[in-house]
Amino acid sequence: MLIVQKFGGTSVGDLERIQNVANRIAKTVEAGHQVVAVVSAMSGETNKLVGYAEHFSDEPVRAEVDMLLSSGERVTASLLSIALNAMSHKALSMSGRRAGIMTDGMHTKARIESIDPSVMQDLLSDGNVVVVAGFQGVNEKGQVTTLGRGGSDLSAVAVAGALKADLCEIYTDVEGIYTTDPRIEPKAKKLDKISYDEMLELASLGAKVLQNRSVELAKKLNVNLVTRSSFSEAEGTLITKEENIMEEPLVSGIALDRSQARISLSGVIDRPGIASDIFGRLADSDVNIDMIIQTSGHDGTTNMDFTVPMNELGDAKRVVEQFISNNEIKEYGYDESICKVSIVGVGMKSHTGVAAKAFQTMADENINILMISTSEIKVSMVIAEKYAELAVRSLHSVYELEK
Amino acid sequence: MLIVQKFGGTSVGDLERIQNVANRIAKTVEAGHQVVAVVSAMSGETNKLVGYAEHFSDEPVRAEVDMLLSSGERVTASLLSIALNAMSHKALSMSGRRAGIMTDGMHTKARIESIDPSVMQDLLSDGNVVVVAGFQGVNEKGQVTTLGRGGSDLSAVAVAGALKADLCEIYTDVEGIYTTDPRIEPKAKKLDKISYDEMLELASLGAKVLQNRSVELAKKLNVNLVTRSSFSEAEGTLITKEENIMEEPLVSGIALDRSQARISLSGVIDRPGIASDIFGRLADSDVNIDMIIQTSGHDGTTNMDFTVPMNELGDAKRVVEQFISNNEIKEYGYDESICKVSIVGVGMKSHTGVAAKAFQTMADENINILMISTSEIKVSMVIAEKYAELAVRSLHSVYELEK
Repeated sequence: MLIVQKFGGTSVGDLERIQNVANRIAKTVEAGHQVVAVVSAMSGETNKLVGYAEHFSDEPVRAEVDMLLSSGERVTASLLSIALNAMSHKALSMSGRRAGIMTDGMHTKARIESIDPSVMQDLLSDGNVVVVAGFQGVNEKGQVTTLGRGGSDLSAVAVAGALKADLCEIYTDVEGIYTTDPRIEPKAKKLDKISYDEMLELASLGAKVLQNRSVELAKKLNVNLVTRSSFSEAEGTLITKEENIMEEPLVSGIALDRSQARISLSGVIDRPGIASDIFGRLADSDVNIDMIIQTSGHDGTTNMDFTVPMNELGDAKRVVEQFISNNEIKEYGYDESICKVSIVGVGMKSHTGVAAKAFQTMADENINILMISTSEIKVSMVIAEKYAELAVRSLHSVYELEK
Repeated sequence: MLIVQKFGGTSVGDLERIQNVANRIAKTVEAGHQVVAVVSAMSGETNKLVGYAEHFSDEPVRAEVDMLLSSGERVTASLLSIALNAMSHKALSMSGRRAGIMTDGMHTKARIESIDPSVMQDLLSDGNVVVVAGFQGVNEKGQVTTLGRGGSDLSAVAVAGALKADLCEIYTDVEGIYTTDPRIEPKAKKLDKISYDEMLELASLGAKVLQNRSVELAKKLNVNLVTRSSFSEAEGTLITKEENIMEEPLVSGIALDRSQARISLSGVIDRPGIASDIFGRLADSDVNIDMIIQTSGHDGTTNMDFTVPMNELGDAKRVVEQFISNNEIKEYGYDESICKVSIVGVGMKSHTGVAAKAFQTMADENINILMISTSEIKVSMVIAEKYAELAVRSLHSVYELEK
């Protein structure tokens, strides 16, 4: 098999860990596989370099930040290759540029546009392990670009797609995707397989193992993703096409998101376009709205409730206060002590009653549901934060996820 | 003018010093010049990375060492560019590859084969300061190479040659080239100008400001080199064509080299090819011979004296002992407490009596001359090390270099 293995900053955090990674790759090669390793900077290194840049400017010029930061992954890549060669495994490290990763020109958050895998292919046929500096590419002018948060995962998925690799393994410090957070529900089980769409829902609901950009790219390029731990031998979780999952479970997991706050507007004047005005202005201020509920109040006005990430609450309040000054909203309140509990599973598509069961469970536990939103494979409920653990454990048990 | 300014590891040793370098470049630009800056890694950084590599292997694979080390200069280059941009000076950093520096394939000690200056030229015409990561290039396969010791100086000279720059300024922690080491002779004076050939002699005789490779390249490419201090405003020393130096001084400087040891062979058998055998074997063992004197002894045998760098004395002794085992040399001795004092000056070509004056000076001071070698522009004498300072000061005075 051709396997792309991606190792994040923690997995290559010091020289001993880089040696461990080399050992793991060697084992994969000795088992008869071809390996492309994609690596991040040693943990702490990127922050150190950002600190250097900020010594000179609060807003260092972005093209140069890319040049600066890209050195971190190059260091890891060459060290890993040195370690592999020292174990008599032919290996060659390369920058994103040499790996053929072409991006657009958006420095510090570039998007991969194409990959020319020919150099990697030649080296693989020649029996080399190819070690690629993750997180980076090159724009059409030949300047280094970086891919932003989670960039090395993206590099790995894109490389796997371009090489038509059999697997893309993302190594982190957790063993895979769980039915829910094991710190809340010790009975949580690691999932063997999960579909791209379920993973996308879980990721956007707070499962921090993978970022949505990477899962979306894997789905688009049809890359079989595996998340697993670089510190254990345990099999990880395969993220793949729905068709590849033989027995689809009704519910795959319960996600909990504590990072949202709720804003309640009351007495919103009833004129055409008022909702689009409010939410457009919030979007312009880079406030990400998650759930929205609108109810009619008295006097022909309406009430609106919506949730925003906690750290964007200040910006959201400023926008709302402008509408209050203009007499288009009467008053507002906000609540930071809420959380969002979600049930995710592709099985919901073909089964009815999944949502009803969730609402019933909340009722049985005397938990008041403040807001509800549903999609084809997800039911999300906003509840008071103090019930978070209780809600997760009850739902985990009701859907029999511990089995 | 178009000026290439090269800043070594000490000059960019920390963030404050990088800011100082940015200030200096800004001043040059504000005076109406175009600037290409060539930078080394921050001092200590390269050693740190070498230490990392040696964690995995005593002989880390060289191509990967190049990939690893080249990151150091990239960091400095991008930080300097960030600092310049923060001062509202348009600047752009680039790797050796992007600067068009093509080398051969000898990793860790590559030679520059050609430079395509078109990217640099475009950016300069566009009003940018161009900041080039020194010490590195790229081979025909597209792999990063590094240029070995003094590599950033070489980058600067080669870039200056390719761009037909008016000046190539090498910034170090000394103010220029002196008539002799000011720690020995406080009356030593900084030279305003010196010819390439004189500089080559001085460099090979221990003046550590510039390496011969860089001076040779400057001579070949007809680049006007200036060495000056990054910590002061003092004018440096211009190293240029002999024709550009109006009044050639008889003697430009006195050099002292304490790093040599003398080996004396006696009873060397007289057979054809014995000298080439001995010195060939020494060369094979990477021992660099400097001066050689041969005298005939008794019994039809000969005596040979030669000097070697102190740190190659052990290797040299091993070679000599093989000849003793083979009965081709009777015995040998060695002396580490010697030094070499040299007088350098292009004026010697057209003046007689310069050497005689040196020998007379030694005689006047009762200093015994152990070995002599001369070239067109140099007289070197090996003497006991205890007379080193006395010899330097006497010669400095006799040739009136303090004036």
